[in-house]
Amino acid sequence: MPDLEAIVTEIADAMRARPDRGAVASYIPELARVDAGQFGLVVIDRAGQVAAGGDADIPFSIQSISKVFTLTLALGMVGDRLWRKVGREPSGSPFNSIVQLEREQGIPRNPFINAGAIAVTDVILSGHQPREALGEILRFMQFLAQDSGIAIDETVAASEKRTGFRNAALANYMRSFGVLENPVDYTLGVYFHHCAIAMTCRQLATAGLYLAYSGQHPLAGHSVISAERARRINAIMLTCGHYDGSGEFAYRVGLPGKSGVGGGILAVAPGRASICVWSPGLDAAGNSHLGRIALEMLVKRTGWSIFGV
Amino acid sequence: MPDLEAIVTEIADAMRARPDRGAVASYIPELARVDAGQFGLVVIDRAGQVAAGGDADIPFSIQSISKVFTLTLALGMVGDRLWRKVGREPSGSPFNSIVQLEREQGIPRNPFINAGAIAVTDVILSGHQPREALGEILRFMQFLAQDSGIAIDETVAASEKRTGFRNAALANYMRSFGVLENPVDYTLGVYFHHCAIAMTCRQLATAGLYLAYSGQHPLAGHSVISAERARRINAIMLTCGHYDGSGEFAYRVGLPGKSGVGGGILAVAPGRASICVWSPGLDAAGNSHLGRIALEMLVKRTGWSIFGV
Amino acid sequence: MPDLEAIVTEIADAMRARPDRGAVASYIPELARVDAGQFGLVVIDRAGQVAAGGDADIPFSIQSISKVFTLTLALGMVGDRLWRKVGREPSGSPFNSIVQLEREQGIPRNPFINAGAIAVTDVILSGHQPREALGEILRFMQFLAQDSGIAIDETVAASEKRTGFRNAALANYMRSFGVLENPVDYTLGVYFHHCAIAMTCRQLATAGLYLAYSGQHPLAGHSVISAERARRINAIMLTCGHYDGSGEFAYRVGLPGKSGVGGGILAVAPGRASICVWSPGLDAAGNSHLGRIALEMLVKRTGWSIFGV
Amino acid sequence: MPDLEAIVTEIADAMRARPDRGAVASYIPELARVDAGQFGLVVIDRAGQVAAGGDADIPFSIQSISKVFTLTLALGMVGDRLWRKVGREPSGSPFNSIVQLEREQGIPRNPFINAGAIAVTDVILSGHQPREALGEILRFMQFLAQDSGIAIDETVAASEKRTGFRNAALANYMRSFGVLENPVDYTLGVYFHHCAIAMTCRQLATAGLYLAYSGQHPLAGHSVISAERARRINAIMLTCGHYDGSGEFAYRVGLPGKSGVGGGILAVAPGRASICVWSPGLDAAGNSHLGRIALEMLVKRTGWSIFGV
Repeated sequence: MPDLEAIVTEIADAMRARPDRGAVASYIPELARVDAGQFGLVVIDRAGQVAAGGDADIPFSIQSISKVFTLTLALGMVGDRLWRKVGREPSGSPFNSIVQLEREQGIPRNPFINAGAIAVTDVILSGHQPREALGEILRFMQFLAQDSGIAIDETVAASEKRTGFRNAALANYMRSFGVLENPVDYTLGVYFHHCAIAMTCRQLATAGLYLAYSGQHPLAGHSVISAERARRINAIMLTCGHYDGSGEFAYRVGLPGKSGVGGGILAVAPGRASICVWSPGLDAAGNSHLGRIALEMLVKRTGWSIFGV
Repeated sequence: MPDLEAIVTEIADAMRARPDRGAVASYIPELARVDAGQFGLVVIDRAGQVAAGGDADIPFSIQSISKVFTLTLALGMVGDRLWRKVGREPSGSPFNSIVQLEREQGIPRNPFINAGAIAVTDVILSGHQPREALGEILRFMQFLAQDSGIAIDETVAASEKRTGFRNAALANYMRSFGVLENPVDYTLGVYFHHCAIAMTCRQLATAGLYLAYSGQHPLAGHSVISAERARRINAIMLTCGHYDGSGEFAYRVGLPGKSGVGGGILAVAPGRASICVWSPGLDAAGNSHLGRIALEMLVKRTGWSIFGV
Repeated sequence: MPDLEAIVTEIADAMRARPDRGAVASYIPELARVDAGQFGLVVIDRAGQVAAGGDADIPFSIQSISKVFTLTLALGMVGDRLWRKVGREPSGSPFNSIVQLEREQGIPRNPFINAGAIAVTDVILSGHQPREALGEILRFMQFLAQDSGIAIDETVAASEKRTGFRNAALANYMRSFGVLENPVDYTLGVYFHHCAIAMTCRQLATAGLYLAYSGQHPLAGHSVISAERARRINAIMLTCGHYDGSGEFAYRVGLPGKSGVGGGILAVAPGRASICVWSPGLDAAGNSHLGRIALEMLVKRTGWSIFGV
Repeated sequence: MPDLEAIVTEIADAMRARPDRGAVASYIPELARVDAGQFGLVVIDRAGQVAAGGDADIPFSIQSISKVFTLTLALGMVGDRLWRKVGREPSGSPFNSIVQLEREQGIPRNPFINAGAIAVTDVILSGHQPREALGEILRFMQFLAQDSGIAIDETVAASEKRTGFRNAALANYMRSFGVLENPVDYTLGVYFHHCAIAMTCRQLATAGLYLAYSGQHPLAGHSVISAERARRINAIMLTCGHYDGSGEFAYRVGLPGKSGVGGGILAVAPGRASICVWSPGLDAAGNSHLGRIALEMLVKRTGWSIFGV
């Protein structure tokens, strides 16, 4: 086991010193106000040992990272029937593209592009009121993060709703093909809210432990999902977790991961650790610029790449 | 270490018994004549220990599996400058799509779709006669497979050339953007010929050892590429190695791999083994139907998935 | 001048006898109930002379034919500034495609595909309540048709609204680019309602007179638009009036025209007549099957093609 | 009848004075050398009366204008069977797009985009040697223009061949779908050569007379095609004659026309005149910038728009 404390501290220091930070997401006004100078990194292992660096305890908007957890929830609810409504292939397109939907009859390519995550949210909502569905998602996050204080940032949720016309287009489009089944406003409401959950690096790394340890959550003390399902979610994160930068992330970092436009990335080193990095500035593909670089350093130091030592 | 002999035999028997075999590739007349009933599987580890089942020593047309080796060669020749001419992202399209090229100024998405592999071949060709370039590729294959008897099936090469109008379209299209630099006929000639190399499962599994062992080829006795480059090629195989079925392969099998329309798949379990499976019948995405199922069984039995035990 | 009475009667009889009728639009439930056996044809000249055949006085849902009149209205309100929000080129795509919008930054290709007509409606709405905007459109239609009894079929409007998810997708998508400026629900509400106006062939042919006569409406007794604007609207009808069947309509009929999925077609023979034909069965491109054939016969008999005698 | 001499002179003078000239086509080196300051305009009526202004007798490369004549020839050879290989709808894409071909199984949208014209050339070639087919095309042009001195500019043809990779891509692509039937090099050779025919405005306006006069060529003294076929070719020119600027040309000029990247436009005022304008500078859609403006002026002065007076 490498000296994680030292490595994490070294990386946090190196990142703080860099002038290049990418651009903070501007399309959601609330997110545009975040200070681009922040950086946090947390690594947690099976024993709950934590190596933390930088702004590890500042909450940020998890945005698309929530899609990993809604996917987990929806699979728990309907199993493989979920795949009737969403595919498992990389999209080869930006995160909010609607072109692919037209070509493929309203079935989104994977659960990690916006359209796919909205379809997954619709499955979770099925037969419930938005408030109930949202409560279920939030309680799941609190349980996984072992922290009942986790909450939705209502200002961000409202901001997304006011400006979420493109997501509304995707949702209505899928509804026209019968892929969505609930009232579009309900589904979008739940979607905007679970993207607006605020969490810290520490909380997210904790929440991701079950993916690093074959579906078992060592701190929560019981099985969240089967080992096979954990592997499969990791596979989808590897191929689809960074939008149209997924190939690049696999090539440079070599870990399953999921990014959010809030600047967070949840990454999984199977059998070794759950990792969360955060830096609000994004690269051209919409993924955290320093976050990716930090993970690349971490993997180099630890030899944790899933593609070989 | 699992009992590989037993596992490989069990899988070969199970595959032989299955009635579903997919459809043999029909667009190259020579390939269409292959007997769909064949199946071979070979697993080789660092020590050169071989577990072989089925038709392990019948040569077949390696087709797109050659792209892994031409990528390795081209990176050795020009290093990261290669990435000016080809990307590293999954394409989200069939293997011979030209749409993506129009959208992205003639730069193919990755080296494993046809357009990308043609661009890589053009780099290898640079400044040489087709015969020389082809000789270099063939000698590289013979060296990696430790078998100087490996040869090109000229009948297949001629068959591809006669019917390769779509590849000619891709090549001319890239040439119009300046991505190809050699005479189109030269580049296509070399491409058609290296796709027409005939190898057995045993030979291919041997040739892939350097990807399983950090760039070292344990049998050839020296370093082929750096450990980092081996990891990176594995990453590209994982995200792009099965055309528009790459996500599915990652989800079900969980190993880096590269398929060819001849029905072969080369797969890599980093640090554990190099694997080659062959069965000529293809699924809808153009990948070996039984090959994928056999690898799924192998990974289940061995716990070799890179996404967790 | 040909004997229009005789020609129109002959065509109506010929159409009644044909077994091929196309398929009634099914995506709006209310429209699906219409009897496919109906056929009407009305030709009106400058003097108000009417030649009518078949079901000339049965009201039908004008649907996309309304787009000609909302375009006329919007041009009257904002002039050429309208073209900042919508193009004037044929789309090369089905009427409800969203792909083109993604490629061209939310600007619809022309005012006669759904997206374009929604953008035009948004311009008409600007600064008004939906009820007011709709009133203005309806009064314009009543004035042009010289019939104050023309009304909206509220059942059809409600049916469209309930099932109009694809149009909602288009509208939200354009809103995300800032092409729409009013609340999406307002714009869609007005759009669904003006598509649901019910008119007879006689009323529509009367309403179209200003396009046949250089912007002058001979029956209403004054100028509706300039001669140049009339020519230009006719040009857009010729190139874009029949969705992805516009080339075919120009090739076979040779008159500017606009079709609706209710089965109506308004056609203009400049300087000669305004024409409306109606038959609810549609061809594959969504245009009235017998309507097109009837117009082809009419043009053959009269020599009215704009492309030469 | 307006005083054409005066109008044509006025327009030629006005065009000469304008500073805006567009950009000369650069992708064919030979064309890039042409002086952008040139302008010619010729109008010919049924009686052979000619109004000529500017550089009416300087030969230029007719380029895509040749597609009108090869379409006429091919229809004469195989009739409506031609439409199995090429459509009649506007493409909604640039002149050399390959995307549409992928979506529509290798069938080009219309005979006036490059792919369509190559398919038409392949039909003319059928069963002949390239030299024979080219001879036939050239003799047809000489006959229509009543001038046996018309010739191919071999320097331009060779220049196109050397740089015609995109057209080679289109041709190979269609060949892969079986839409082309001759050796790709043969078809492209004939295509490049007929695009390289050099003609003057006077010659082209003479050659177009049969389209203005119902298929009769008043000077050649006999029928070239039927009146119906002339109307239909005019219709295709109107909807597809200016690539992705066809809607704009119809909107502003209101005449069937076909442009070439050499800067020429052949336009037809049915029953009134055949017109050719030439100015080498192009607009963004690849059509002659001053040519379009000159035709707009001409139509305003003469009232010849087919969309109304």
